[in-house]
Amino acid sequence: MLMKASSQSLTEQLAGRFSERIRNRLLAPGARLPSVRQCAEQHGVSPTTVVAAYDQLLAQGLVEARKNRGFFVREAAPPAGEGETAAPPAMPAGWNAAHWIVARRGPAPVNATSLIRGMFHKVSNKPQPGMGVFPSEWLESTFMPAAVRKVTSTRALHDFSLQYGEPLGDTGLRRALATKLAALNVPASPEQIITSVGATHALDIVSRTLLRPGDPVMVEEPGWAVEFARLTALGMHLLPVPRRADGPDLDVMAKYCAVHKPKLYVSVSVFHNPTSYCLSPGSAHRLLQLANQHDFHIVEDDTYSHIAPAHATRLSALDGLQRTIYVGGFAKILAPNWRIGFLAAPPALVEQMLDTKLLGTLTTPALLEKALALCIEQGQLRRHSERIRTRLDVARGRSVKLALQAGCRFAAEPAGLFGWVDTGVDTDALAQRMLDEGYLLAPGALFHAERTPSTLMRINFATTQDAAFWKKYVELVKRM
Amino acid sequence: MLMKASSQSLTEQLAGRFSERIRNRLLAPGARLPSVRQCAEQHGVSPTTVVAAYDQLLAQGLVEARKNRGFFVREAAPPAGEGETAAPPAMPAGWNAAHWIVARRGPAPVNATSLIRGMFHKVSNKPQPGMGVFPSEWLESTFMPAAVRKVTSTRALHDFSLQYGEPLGDTGLRRALATKLAALNVPASPEQIITSVGATHALDIVSRTLLRPGDPVMVEEPGWAVEFARLTALGMHLLPVPRRADGPDLDVMAKYCAVHKPKLYVSVSVFHNPTSYCLSPGSAHRLLQLANQHDFHIVEDDTYSHIAPAHATRLSALDGLQRTIYVGGFAKILAPNWRIGFLAAPPALVEQMLDTKLLGTLTTPALLEKALALCIEQGQLRRHSERIRTRLDVARGRSVKLALQAGCRFAAEPAGLFGWVDTGVDTDALAQRMLDEGYLLAPGALFHAERTPSTLMRINFATTQDAAFWKKYVELVKRM
Repeated sequence: MLMKASSQSLTEQLAGRFSERIRNRLLAPGARLPSVRQCAEQHGVSPTTVVAAYDQLLAQGLVEARKNRGFFVREAAPPAGEGETAAPPAMPAGWNAAHWIVARRGPAPVNATSLIRGMFHKVSNKPQPGMGVFPSEWLESTFMPAAVRKVTSTRALHDFSLQYGEPLGDTGLRRALATKLAALNVPASPEQIITSVGATHALDIVSRTLLRPGDPVMVEEPGWAVEFARLTALGMHLLPVPRRADGPDLDVMAKYCAVHKPKLYVSVSVFHNPTSYCLSPGSAHRLLQLANQHDFHIVEDDTYSHIAPAHATRLSALDGLQRTIYVGGFAKILAPNWRIGFLAAPPALVEQMLDTKLLGTLTTPALLEKALALCIEQGQLRRHSERIRTRLDVARGRSVKLALQAGCRFAAEPAGLFGWVDTGVDTDALAQRMLDEGYLLAPGALFHAERTPSTLMRINFATTQDAAFWKKYVELVKRM
Repeated sequence: MLMKASSQSLTEQLAGRFSERIRNRLLAPGARLPSVRQCAEQHGVSPTTVVAAYDQLLAQGLVEARKNRGFFVREAAPPAGEGETAAPPAMPAGWNAAHWIVARRGPAPVNATSLIRGMFHKVSNKPQPGMGVFPSEWLESTFMPAAVRKVTSTRALHDFSLQYGEPLGDTGLRRALATKLAALNVPASPEQIITSVGATHALDIVSRTLLRPGDPVMVEEPGWAVEFARLTALGMHLLPVPRRADGPDLDVMAKYCAVHKPKLYVSVSVFHNPTSYCLSPGSAHRLLQLANQHDFHIVEDDTYSHIAPAHATRLSALDGLQRTIYVGGFAKILAPNWRIGFLAAPPALVEQMLDTKLLGTLTTPALLEKALALCIEQGQLRRHSERIRTRLDVARGRSVKLALQAGCRFAAEPAGLFGWVDTGVDTDALAQRMLDEGYLLAPGALFHAERTPSTLMRINFATTQDAAFWKKYVELVKRM
């Protein structure tokens, strides 16, 4: 809300709000600002105030005026040398992921990088339905600091700090992970496991090892925007496979195989993001047959395994890590900032994956890997995960009820962390208006490789139990 | 030494030695094993013992026999799908860095990845003249564990562990780094600084942001093999620029600019690896003029800054971070396993670099960044660096004397951490023989983009003060 009593003028407040949003990418380069009339109406100020605010943004170089079309967020400067040489046809025209995504998808209010930035930058102190993580207060524990204290005695600290450490990652952690994977029926020896700086880094290692620029790679649609952006930045050719309730659309996949010979399929089998779908055993079996027939690898991102039942169907379990690579992480369940992820690869691929890790970062820090190993070995992580699952079940019940009362329709059966809901209105526009109220949404268009307007949005069940949010939501949807 | 009194037979011991070396890449895929006669002579065993040992290696699938040519280390399996589609002409034929480097350079006993592996894997308990780091006992300190204790109180740990943290990196550390850079006349605000998982990761972020596969990039020759391997794995086209005592060969560079329009030059200005050359002010000035004229960026890797005088010439200082990107790290001086590096970029490039970091790893762990910030702020790192410099000066004096006595000639004025010495014999062959004695060498061929036989080698002054090493060296060189 803009406030008349503030020490800042209404113009300054309005300009400040837009400039902050532009800087945090909540308004992407190329996005159109609301018309003067619209903006005046939305914020309850006079058109003169809006014009003055837009003028300030113009003077700051944040927006540009286009004749008869209004004001647009300025595109960031292209990378140096850009445009001097013609890009190879298979390469994206803009090399930088964020800019390319924006350019490719057309101006859109919230893009992949803005969602990532949103992970780090609080929009407000309100619970954020668009976020992809648990609220930090859910993650507090006593065992985590205890584990850190245990591994940081002076002698221990010297022992592991003053050497580069194990290339594959801390041996104790890899042993604990092997045991954990065995419980999921994924047969991985500690020598097949490579630790990484979070699951994102593990996915990066996999794709840098198996693919080279221009290679076709199959991704799920809807799917995780950051993964699309990452692969695009590496110059890969994305082939979106529709994700159904029981698994990927295998007919589409078979066609891609025939035409493009993709080398890799990137998939979240359990509690898929954003739908929370789980792969069915039959679908998994047929998918692996297709992979064998067309000789592609599968990387299975099991980020949500901590809140999923052990018996959920995982490709890596069926396949026994023959052509699947399993990726996991602990940011969601334990400590986002510890940045620990890992991959488990077929034996024949381990050395190549390790080379990719070493060339990109050398080793990873052992301190937190050792602390994590303790948390796993002593059963604390398992009990912590159980507590969070129970709490999430309650939160999901509440959120679903409120969402239905607010007129939402669930496009997928509510499960896991995320709900995939149909609002009936354009969620890109809705997201921008909710931002004015201090709420970050995750509009459906964000989860598509080719941005198309969508009435869907992803909600986080842990952060959508707030009646105030749904009240504001109903109010804004009515006005659209 | 093989031992008759061992519980293992001489054959088992010999086979074991070779298999360990192959597994650790100290014998690269494609490398030829010594002839039976040579091997028998070198190890003081009968030819029958050697034949039996080679047979064991054959049975283990580690080597292959080639008719009338002898035994060769087996090439690792190519990445899946390799060879199915034709590689684009600008791309390396083998996508995986290590294999490609080997393939490109031809069979060679010690390659880039073996040197990296050597960083993590002790060849023996002897001091290792080929290593690139200080011995870990030089790095012991009391301030480091104290700093860790300070930042890991329960409350503090929760505060930063349960959020992803600052995208750019810990604010306190970036402030401390900005102050440190100001002392080197490199003008960087904390907002221009991005932390990373070691300097290697920072270089990875820079090249992934500024380059796309197939792009020409200038590197120094001789230069750091891991950097060649990293850029090659990203599909870049390497243009080696001869490095002279005062700086790069600017005539060669100008020719590259005219023909290839390279986008980036990767350089170590101060205590260049492997020569320890320092850039002269005149050379720096002319190099920057060339960069302006031909519009390329420069990434300046200042890894050895901690042991260098503050007044050493740095391109980033002259240029004021206009078209230079400064990269630094702490693995060499403080704690290799903490994996903290950083880059300081021109303001216009910061956002793009940050996107690359986020898409590849999201954030970096704050715990060790906070501890490092304390070590810098309290002046402990500076004093620690001074102590190490003093100790290195003494070690260098001793090592130089021993090297000269052993008949080495210094190809570059001794300075910094590394000596660049001419042995008069093929150092690839010498390295293999010294390995039998438990010493890892860094043969000159390793520092060339195109592997060519070399009589040069790089020695680490901190680990070459050992008279026993030089005695063995003289003995083996005489026999070559």
